[in-house]
Amino acid sequence: MKRRFAGATGIAVAIAVAVGCVEVDEVRAQDAKDVSPLYGVAVPDGYRKWELVAPALEDDPLNELRAVVGNTVAMEAYRSGTLPFPDGTVLVKLAWKRAQSAEFGTATVPGAATTVQVMVKDSGRYAATGGWGFGRFIDGKPVDEAQHETCFACHDARVQGHDYVFTRYAP
Amino acid sequence: MKRRFAGATGIAVAIAVAVGCVEVDEVRAQDAKDVSPLYGVAVPDGYRKWELVAPALEDDPLNELRAVVGNTVAMEAYRSGTLPFPDGTVLVKLAWKRAQSAEFGTATVPGAATTVQVMVKDSGRYAATGGWGFGRFIDGKPVDEAQHETCFACHDARVQGHDYVFTRYAP
Repeated sequence: MKRRFAGATGIAVAIAVAVGCVEVDEVRAQDAKDVSPLYGVAVPDGYRKWELVAPALEDDPLNELRAVVGNTVAMEAYRSGTLPFPDGTVLVKLAWKRAQSAEFGTATVPGAATTVQVMVKDSGRYAATGGWGFGRFIDGKPVDEAQHETCFACHDARVQGHDYVFTRYAP
Repeated sequence: MKRRFAGATGIAVAIAVAVGCVEVDEVRAQDAKDVSPLYGVAVPDGYRKWELVAPALEDDPLNELRAVVGNTVAMEAYRSGTLPFPDGTVLVKLAWKRAQSAEFGTATVPGAATTVQVMVKDSGRYAATGGWGFGRFIDGKPVDEAQHETCFACHDARVQGHDYVFTRYAP
């Protein structure tokens, strides 16, 4: 049986090499586009239905309304006050240009979506950056490596005491 | 059997009337405190885990960050573009005083929680107010009748064309 599986695998690999290389390369290129440089972080499926951690506003120059949502691991950690966040924590920050409400003079509401930013806790994989992997996406595509180099430096300088996470739970 | 149950119920009622009237009154008073005047709307259980519709900011004089969340009926209506919202829709607006982030100069973050505001769609019960019942709560207790009289007037004047709902879904 072992030999037979090895043989079948060998044939499959041979076929893939012979006729599948273009498709394989396309898949790899697609994968590479959709995960962040440096960290290999992807936009998690279904994040838009995750629970709210807190909203925020970014003033000039960004002028954005934001909302951070978290997966189940994240929300349990927030509610129980667990720090550092456990492996498996995923936080996603949604951002929109701030817009003036047409219907209520003093209200600022979300305009066009701008970035989606992701933090993934994996203390082994991301040991060099406080246990966190970062991803910054525009229209589902990660921004460049230079921008990703700024993520941890800023979180490290400002919120090391809160496990490198800016956002607190808003009850 | 029927007679026996009726007898047991009669005894239970007699006991309740004889010794339970203080507790019953207390429960009624508690109930009356926790639903809104005019509408009888309560803060729904578990709303803090509901999905986000959109964040917002209210400038002077309120200076609040807000987030509207919706129950399943609400989110399905938003995502499918269904208007008017179906009966069973419940929207909850959470609000916090805006606070300056101590860690990031241009960021406004949630401070103390202020109000929780609820809209419940029931086209029969609330036919006189566009099908919506309103509730405005501070520390879990509804505010007074005078404040509740302002809810529909404002929604009617400004967002009748969006089924009396200000908040749009932020994708």
